[in-house]
Amino acid sequence: MTHRHDHDRLERIGMPEAVLCEPKSVEQFAAIVAELTQSTDQPRLFTRVRSDQLASLPAGLLERLDIDPVSRTAILHGVRPPRPGRVTVVAAGTSDAAVAAEAERTLEFSGVRVESIVDVGVAGLWRLEERLDEIRAADIVIAVAGMDAALVSVLGGLVAAPLVAVPTSVGYGVATGGSTALHSALASCAQGVTVVNIDNGFGAACAAVRMLSLLGGAAE
Amino acid sequence: MTHRHDHDRLERIGMPEAVLCEPKSVEQFAAIVAELTQSTDQPRLFTRVRSDQLASLPAGLLERLDIDPVSRTAILHGVRPPRPGRVTVVAAGTSDAAVAAEAERTLEFSGVRVESIVDVGVAGLWRLEERLDEIRAADIVIAVAGMDAALVSVLGGLVAAPLVAVPTSVGYGVATGGSTALHSALASCAQGVTVVNIDNGFGAACAAVRMLSLLGGAAE
Amino acid sequence: MTHRHDHDRLERIGMPEAVLCEPKSVEQFAAIVAELTQSTDQPRLFTRVRSDQLASLPAGLLERLDIDPVSRTAILHGVRPPRPGRVTVVAAGTSDAAVAAEAERTLEFSGVRVESIVDVGVAGLWRLEERLDEIRAADIVIAVAGMDAALVSVLGGLVAAPLVAVPTSVGYGVATGGSTALHSALASCAQGVTVVNIDNGFGAACAAVRMLSLLGGAAE
Amino acid sequence: MTHRHDHDRLERIGMPEAVLCEPKSVEQFAAIVAELTQSTDQPRLFTRVRSDQLASLPAGLLERLDIDPVSRTAILHGVRPPRPGRVTVVAAGTSDAAVAAEAERTLEFSGVRVESIVDVGVAGLWRLEERLDEIRAADIVIAVAGMDAALVSVLGGLVAAPLVAVPTSVGYGVATGGSTALHSALASCAQGVTVVNIDNGFGAACAAVRMLSLLGGAAE
Amino acid sequence: MTHRHDHDRLERIGMPEAVLCEPKSVEQFAAIVAELTQSTDQPRLFTRVRSDQLASLPAGLLERLDIDPVSRTAILHGVRPPRPGRVTVVAAGTSDAAVAAEAERTLEFSGVRVESIVDVGVAGLWRLEERLDEIRAADIVIAVAGMDAALVSVLGGLVAAPLVAVPTSVGYGVATGGSTALHSALASCAQGVTVVNIDNGFGAACAAVRMLSLLGGAAE
Amino acid sequence: MTHRHDHDRLERIGMPEAVLCEPKSVEQFAAIVAELTQSTDQPRLFTRVRSDQLASLPAGLLERLDIDPVSRTAILHGVRPPRPGRVTVVAAGTSDAAVAAEAERTLEFSGVRVESIVDVGVAGLWRLEERLDEIRAADIVIAVAGMDAALVSVLGGLVAAPLVAVPTSVGYGVATGGSTALHSALASCAQGVTVVNIDNGFGAACAAVRMLSLLGGAAE
Amino acid sequence: MTHRHDHDRLERIGMPEAVLCEPKSVEQFAAIVAELTQSTDQPRLFTRVRSDQLASLPAGLLERLDIDPVSRTAILHGVRPPRPGRVTVVAAGTSDAAVAAEAERTLEFSGVRVESIVDVGVAGLWRLEERLDEIRAADIVIAVAGMDAALVSVLGGLVAAPLVAVPTSVGYGVATGGSTALHSALASCAQGVTVVNIDNGFGAACAAVRMLSLLGGAAE
Amino acid sequence: MTHRHDHDRLERIGMPEAVLCEPKSVEQFAAIVAELTQSTDQPRLFTRVRSDQLASLPAGLLERLDIDPVSRTAILHGVRPPRPGRVTVVAAGTSDAAVAAEAERTLEFSGVRVESIVDVGVAGLWRLEERLDEIRAADIVIAVAGMDAALVSVLGGLVAAPLVAVPTSVGYGVATGGSTALHSALASCAQGVTVVNIDNGFGAACAAVRMLSLLGGAAE
Repeated sequence: MTHRHDHDRLERIGMPEAVLCEPKSVEQFAAIVAELTQSTDQPRLFTRVRSDQLASLPAGLLERLDIDPVSRTAILHGVRPPRPGRVTVVAAGTSDAAVAAEAERTLEFSGVRVESIVDVGVAGLWRLEERLDEIRAADIVIAVAGMDAALVSVLGGLVAAPLVAVPTSVGYGVATGGSTALHSALASCAQGVTVVNIDNGFGAACAAVRMLSLLGGAAE
Repeated sequence: MTHRHDHDRLERIGMPEAVLCEPKSVEQFAAIVAELTQSTDQPRLFTRVRSDQLASLPAGLLERLDIDPVSRTAILHGVRPPRPGRVTVVAAGTSDAAVAAEAERTLEFSGVRVESIVDVGVAGLWRLEERLDEIRAADIVIAVAGMDAALVSVLGGLVAAPLVAVPTSVGYGVATGGSTALHSALASCAQGVTVVNIDNGFGAACAAVRMLSLLGGAAE
Repeated sequence: MTHRHDHDRLERIGMPEAVLCEPKSVEQFAAIVAELTQSTDQPRLFTRVRSDQLASLPAGLLERLDIDPVSRTAILHGVRPPRPGRVTVVAAGTSDAAVAAEAERTLEFSGVRVESIVDVGVAGLWRLEERLDEIRAADIVIAVAGMDAALVSVLGGLVAAPLVAVPTSVGYGVATGGSTALHSALASCAQGVTVVNIDNGFGAACAAVRMLSLLGGAAE
Repeated sequence: MTHRHDHDRLERIGMPEAVLCEPKSVEQFAAIVAELTQSTDQPRLFTRVRSDQLASLPAGLLERLDIDPVSRTAILHGVRPPRPGRVTVVAAGTSDAAVAAEAERTLEFSGVRVESIVDVGVAGLWRLEERLDEIRAADIVIAVAGMDAALVSVLGGLVAAPLVAVPTSVGYGVATGGSTALHSALASCAQGVTVVNIDNGFGAACAAVRMLSLLGGAAE
Repeated sequence: MTHRHDHDRLERIGMPEAVLCEPKSVEQFAAIVAELTQSTDQPRLFTRVRSDQLASLPAGLLERLDIDPVSRTAILHGVRPPRPGRVTVVAAGTSDAAVAAEAERTLEFSGVRVESIVDVGVAGLWRLEERLDEIRAADIVIAVAGMDAALVSVLGGLVAAPLVAVPTSVGYGVATGGSTALHSALASCAQGVTVVNIDNGFGAACAAVRMLSLLGGAAE
Repeated sequence: MTHRHDHDRLERIGMPEAVLCEPKSVEQFAAIVAELTQSTDQPRLFTRVRSDQLASLPAGLLERLDIDPVSRTAILHGVRPPRPGRVTVVAAGTSDAAVAAEAERTLEFSGVRVESIVDVGVAGLWRLEERLDEIRAADIVIAVAGMDAALVSVLGGLVAAPLVAVPTSVGYGVATGGSTALHSALASCAQGVTVVNIDNGFGAACAAVRMLSLLGGAAE
Repeated sequence: MTHRHDHDRLERIGMPEAVLCEPKSVEQFAAIVAELTQSTDQPRLFTRVRSDQLASLPAGLLERLDIDPVSRTAILHGVRPPRPGRVTVVAAGTSDAAVAAEAERTLEFSGVRVESIVDVGVAGLWRLEERLDEIRAADIVIAVAGMDAALVSVLGGLVAAPLVAVPTSVGYGVATGGSTALHSALASCAQGVTVVNIDNGFGAACAAVRMLSLLGGAAE
Repeated sequence: MTHRHDHDRLERIGMPEAVLCEPKSVEQFAAIVAELTQSTDQPRLFTRVRSDQLASLPAGLLERLDIDPVSRTAILHGVRPPRPGRVTVVAAGTSDAAVAAEAERTLEFSGVRVESIVDVGVAGLWRLEERLDEIRAADIVIAVAGMDAALVSVLGGLVAAPLVAVPTSVGYGVATGGSTALHSALASCAQGVTVVNIDNGFGAACAAVRMLSLLGGAAE
């Protein structure tokens, strides 16, 4: 059984295939890195890299990767060329930072200008209002929130840009695993909010890339 | 099998027993109304009264009841004496009005001064901010909200008074039945919010009555 | 209790407030229609209108509404001015047509050019492939699917445009209520797909409107 | 990304912001402790502190914290000034003691007089009845219970004071994670009971602080 | 397709087969009544009989049945011979009466002496304590309760006899459908309580019949 | 929007497309029947036909359909040619008969020889053992069962043929909707049992048709 | 906080209080063992003892305990006096042995004669039939089964004695955690089966002790 | 308690009993291996073998086993004789390889010719289409997929052979544990697909063996 890459994905949907590492064995991970190092010189993104996967990688391969521990991502062969558009990632709390970082890193990999604003949960609404002009200046907003994800509805009522919600698994009791944040975002009283899977910062960034294609200028 | 009333509940917990009518048969409902009309002259509250229960009641009994169709409540032998304290019921949308009305009516029955504020959902935050001084003047705030119940967290971050959340079953898709609103309220990022069962306007009002006992002056 | 409209929503988020009619009483519905007929001459959309709500409306009000029974929508004061961009709504089966129609009608109301393609479920993949050029020509694609919602992943792997999935409640057994379609869309193996609540054709259309703002030219 | 504190929360809702430590990384925890040690001399509470977070803290910071291992809390800059009112925390079993301790410690931090009564589960009802006078003397009662949480209903029928239920995750089989205790408390047949999230001793204490504001004398 | 009876069930497990009518069509019900009227003269019990099933039955068959509308049961060919033992059915509220009645009727059908005690919910504990001697005199106790089913744990801590809990579907919000009552009974802190399916008064009575076989004297 | 048929499905997967009628409107149903009456003379199956759909059909179309009320199926243009193989449908109880009939009718439509055995639930195991030789003579066995679906495991341990389980939604309490039967069949301790969706008699029959292709001789 | 024992439980319900050790801290466990070693000479049972709890116990206390690693139980001050009656514990598979052992040990502690029969799952029905006479000779049968728990229904149709089902958490996929086995047992098509919580071998044994009181002769 | 094998299973259902090792203790595992090494010379399959079970096995026994770490299987006394038929196992992603390997190994053990095709997820549909002729040449297809399991519907619409879906637990957020993949496969819009429990590669292979019996020539 060998990994079979989807090499023309970039042409088809404007984004290259990424490698979700978490469910793969240490052997499978190493084999894929080795293969991609050889078979292509195009930028590649690895997400949810486990530390034991990195630890077991031969030094020769390890040094080829640009690794970010917070977002648990690795990049091979550099990032994609710059493209028009600007995305702001807004996170409710410090605890959501890892997921926000995954979105941020995926956008950087995709050549998109991105900035992050953290700790603007609605329990202290003034923190969000203070940054509102900044947020409204973005082409696309990604909202990252766990627990009750109230940030999503509040933002959705205040900004006109496309808003992608990323519920996070941060929380305990009824919020364990993120289903409360997910359901809350899906049932948001703010119209036109869209949602991706729990903790899927990568997916939210990819959705933003799809949207930014409306600005033109992205095709290589 | 005869209904067995908990006649000393008023002395024990400061509130008389109420009758939850929805699950009772038409015959059971009529028998309880008849019995309470006779056996006591103390105020009694009936909640979730079904229209077929009222329709089948003998005229002699029906005229004894003070019926409110919006809240689906009925009151026998008048309301309880006035007591100190003031409660504000805040509802996110028009659709939550029936549950808000149940809370409001239960408080009126209990001798508590109450006012309602409706349509202050967070999708248009200015509506809530416009009424904030009014809400902050209350001793206790009851927040009634369905869908994502984001109103609960926003209010919880803005007012210092005790805040009781009533999630409602208004909603569709993931919000069907009210569990999203319930979980969202329980996972609220605002500290010190308490929650009652879905659609339980009666329970929130009773919780407020318990709290108002801290103001003194309520015992008969 | 009176309905309190969010009159400046258009300025704030580029879309006027819409009225979700399903959970409202016949009286509440009539009051809102009456009020909006008087207080504004701006276009307004009513969604999930129940037939009993329409049946009880005074003739004078009824004739003001432009009613579409398939999508269960009504429009007051005409549609919004045309704006740039083109959306394609793709539905897996005939049974998903009502939800697709809600999305289509909301887009028409918003001044957006829209077309629908129905019965392209993946059980007969050639039907989808036959229409692929047409679908790829759209700025935004909305995929409406119940049951296993496999259409979402297949489309997501074939088109580069923003793709909004609307899971539908069509189905039985494990698919009852739409949660299988919802979870399937959220877990889609195609990157960058976003999702709205079950049966929320309105929400998907609003998300498209937000995205089309990237094309410019929409502000009034 | 830096942590952004909600510094005026005390003025707004009568309680300072607390730091929920569990989902934070060791680095984030250390940074917040360092910052709060410097930037303020006001009392601060840390909840759900993990032992690895404490172990990695520089000695200079560690000695500033007043740490309680049972409740997993830490206090910086001392406790808040005494305020009127008295709370009793009642726990069903020894296994619920950690959650009860979190409530107790949060109240002590808030300047509230508090006492705890443990092992009064309803399987031996006499244990509860023996302590009933003591419990009835409190201004507010917090009931901490896992498994079937029957203690909540029994207490709710016996005391008139505000009663806040904290379901715990203690249990196995259907009680795993605490949802049975949560649902049981929400569906309590005793009127006017309110509920907080599973294991949320902190939240119950904050709710009590909100309620005690009705007694006056708490504002600094 | 013809119904195939389990004619020797009485010999095998000490109870005859009963007919659960609810899911059967009107035609299937009529055919089974007709067949059993002819093919046997042994007592037979029909449970959950729907009124439309009875309404469509030929008069000649209808008059053969002993029908009880509260418990929704019908008996053909009389009841089984008396057997030793005495069962008490305890129900928390008036609303649980139908399920309690199904248990009571099944016991009467089985030749067992039975009495019912209703409205002894734990919100007014004195009502239960008042009847405790009576309950303790029974060989077996069946506890019928919806909502939080706290009655089960309280009874389980007070009586030594076998205790069978029947959770009921009475309730709303989190208690809808009876799962809260079911889980609460299964997680009861009182040791040695057993549980049957939601609303299964028939099953609890059959369990009691199995247990009473320990008293001897039941075999025909 | 017009219905788009998958006309070459027969060639591709050996079975023609069937029409699931339940979620379709009366108008959609009539349009599809009309179209298929005209556009093809090949056999077509309609499943889950609602009585209001039939009632509203023009007489000219109605008489073209071969309708079976128990299985809620209709057949247009006759059945498919006979093919090798023999299937036995085994149903646990009378209440499962409608689902069993859907499987049976789909097999008859497909030209497959089929027989049904009903009322062989495991509570009276001898009924099943009595028919075992008959069941073992089949090429494929379909087991239809609700409640705990214990029949599936017992059969799976006794026969060597392919065994397809159809869980049914017959049941109450924890068995409501069929998820207990579904999970029980999936977790069956008998090896090599396969499962289809709840109440999906059609799907089980189609699975049998796929398997019978191993016998050869089916292609037209 | 000190542990408060329910010392008169033996008189009240015929069984002494047992100590559920799993959720207790190492310190709490040691304190309870120390206290009970001193304060009483009556037999005491500890269930779900964790190995780290035993490892940290002072040798002087450890040697007082009679420890059984398979059932994870410990006994202090010997077992209770012999009482009439005989229980058979039937387990579907080797993997259910630990739960079966907990039931067996609790019965031995209670002075009840008990025997176990393992590996009689219904996938090989002859294994069960081979032991049927033995099982039928018991006064009470406890059935321990995970996965689909089909053993419960099969046994329930074959024996007349009281049958208590213990679903186990053995299983994967849909059977993870035991809810499939639990629901299957509750929905059993065999009449009069009762159920306890998942993995609750202790509870099933206590239920048996309650039932055996019908044989008389157990009171001390 | 000793393990009781179902020695005549081969005669009864055409497959020998296999040993599911995961839930067994190290001692139970070793005892079963020892016993089967002695008591029979017939091929035996062990599934879900844990590494600690292997590590603790005496060398004399360990060398008797043919162990495959990817599929976590072990084989004793060689494989079963070759039988007619050919199965193709298709897996959506690299991460599903372990489950696919369990199916493959079980088929090899059963004497069936099998090949695997990996990394043909529908996000890059061309990968599947490229292998379609190969897949269509198989007598039976097993589809292994996690996340949204869209592969199942796509395959089901393209091949006529029996198709058995194995949902896998690969995934995060809503896909955690595999229930999304399971529900998606059960609700597949492709007709005649059957499903086994999550991660049950063994079960899918056994189902294939049952089906291959239709080809004849398998009985020993």
